[in-house]
Amino acid sequence: MTQAAPGSAGDRFALYDLLVTYGALIDAMELDAWLALFAASCTYHIVPRENYERGLPAGLVYCDSRAMVEDRIRALREANKYNIHNDRHLIGLPRVIGEERDAKLVEAPFAVYQTDQEGETRLFATGLYRDRIVAEGNGLKFRDKLVLLDTFAVPSLLATPL
Amino acid sequence: MTQAAPGSAGDRFALYDLLVTYGALIDAMELDAWLALFAASCTYHIVPRENYERGLPAGLVYCDSRAMVEDRIRALREANKYNIHNDRHLIGLPRVIGEERDAKLVEAPFAVYQTDQEGETRLFATGLYRDRIVAEGNGLKFRDKLVLLDTFAVPSLLATPL
Amino acid sequence: MTQAAPGSAGDRFALYDLLVTYGALIDAMELDAWLALFAASCTYHIVPRENYERGLPAGLVYCDSRAMVEDRIRALREANKYNIHNDRHLIGLPRVIGEERDAKLVEAPFAVYQTDQEGETRLFATGLYRDRIVAEGNGLKFRDKLVLLDTFAVPSLLATPL
Repeated sequence: MTQAAPGSAGDRFALYDLLVTYGALIDAMELDAWLALFAASCTYHIVPRENYERGLPAGLVYCDSRAMVEDRIRALREANKYNIHNDRHLIGLPRVIGEERDAKLVEAPFAVYQTDQEGETRLFATGLYRDRIVAEGNGLKFRDKLVLLDTFAVPSLLATPL
Repeated sequence: MTQAAPGSAGDRFALYDLLVTYGALIDAMELDAWLALFAASCTYHIVPRENYERGLPAGLVYCDSRAMVEDRIRALREANKYNIHNDRHLIGLPRVIGEERDAKLVEAPFAVYQTDQEGETRLFATGLYRDRIVAEGNGLKFRDKLVLLDTFAVPSLLATPL
Repeated sequence: MTQAAPGSAGDRFALYDLLVTYGALIDAMELDAWLALFAASCTYHIVPRENYERGLPAGLVYCDSRAMVEDRIRALREANKYNIHNDRHLIGLPRVIGEERDAKLVEAPFAVYQTDQEGETRLFATGLYRDRIVAEGNGLKFRDKLVLLDTFAVPSLLATPL
């Protein structure tokens, strides 16, 4: 990492901030700022955990390039004109589970709640982020974001990112 | 901050501890200790997120001074004689979103669960804390606590703080 | 603690990692690795919070030695052959609430969600960990794990650890 010695406290806090900012920007529907958390070259996949563990390819969202993530965001903006709810992400403490040449492999559990127009809040989904995180430009970025979704009884059209 | 150089690890951990202690003291109904987390001059507001975003003044709780927070606590103690449930706060990692002359502007997402006398636990509310935090006395304190509530289908009498 | 000066950033991160790893290993059903987070001499108790506060001895799980924890794990593996669900732990930031001669007393709130075979996710339980944590071997370990359970309307046979 460029900003601090490997394993330094600053490095760890930068990682914590990246994860919590990721959730906060979705909840605020600041999707351009959210997109800026991804590396220039990146992937973004949402896969039911069960499929992932069985090696099945079927994913709910399958973006193999930054251009595909950008397309996805455009579609989500459109969908959200008609699908009025608010998200709230609660993301557990991330932990570093591996180190690669230039990336850290990081896991964090999450729960997403949705509030409808009547002000009722329900659990929407839980799962596990399994991310490859790199130092790029002025900070840490997601190179590969894998959302392992516990909950597969979700609408096939996800109206916001997870 | 008085206790450590700005941005030091100790400073950040003090912030983390302040937030989690805030939730833990409500859950334990140690409301005097909870009150001691606020600065001598402080505010405490609970506002539905939707109202806040539209600039509507209507808040569920509106305490513009420490005396008003103290009054509120007295009322809550009274209410809790008859409203038997336990709270559990889960608060996400706080992040510093701005710096003022002598305060940090800090956000953290939260979920509150309530357990009734039959031992059943339900999600009560989710939302976002948006706080102004200052160094005062021997530690960090809340000068302004703003609870942006996703869930507005909650009883108008909140029997415990959020 | 052996790895870093008391109160150092590394010490705190080691504590954070211990807690989140605890939850992650249960969720992944890696129960041998989970067991390795406990000290050679350890206890593991799950007690409804209400019973604990009233000083009632009745616990849901009562393991007074490492051998009892190991037995419990064997029973859980057996139970999980027939009880197909996935857990997801969300654990709040731990805070150190006391120091003993060679241990730290640590609390952290948690919520556990379960996903059934139809992919539906529900809140299973919330509560508070109150742990004695020691440095042993190459890291921090749980010497005493006390799970204060808010939710007592849970099946008496817990099919996974909390």
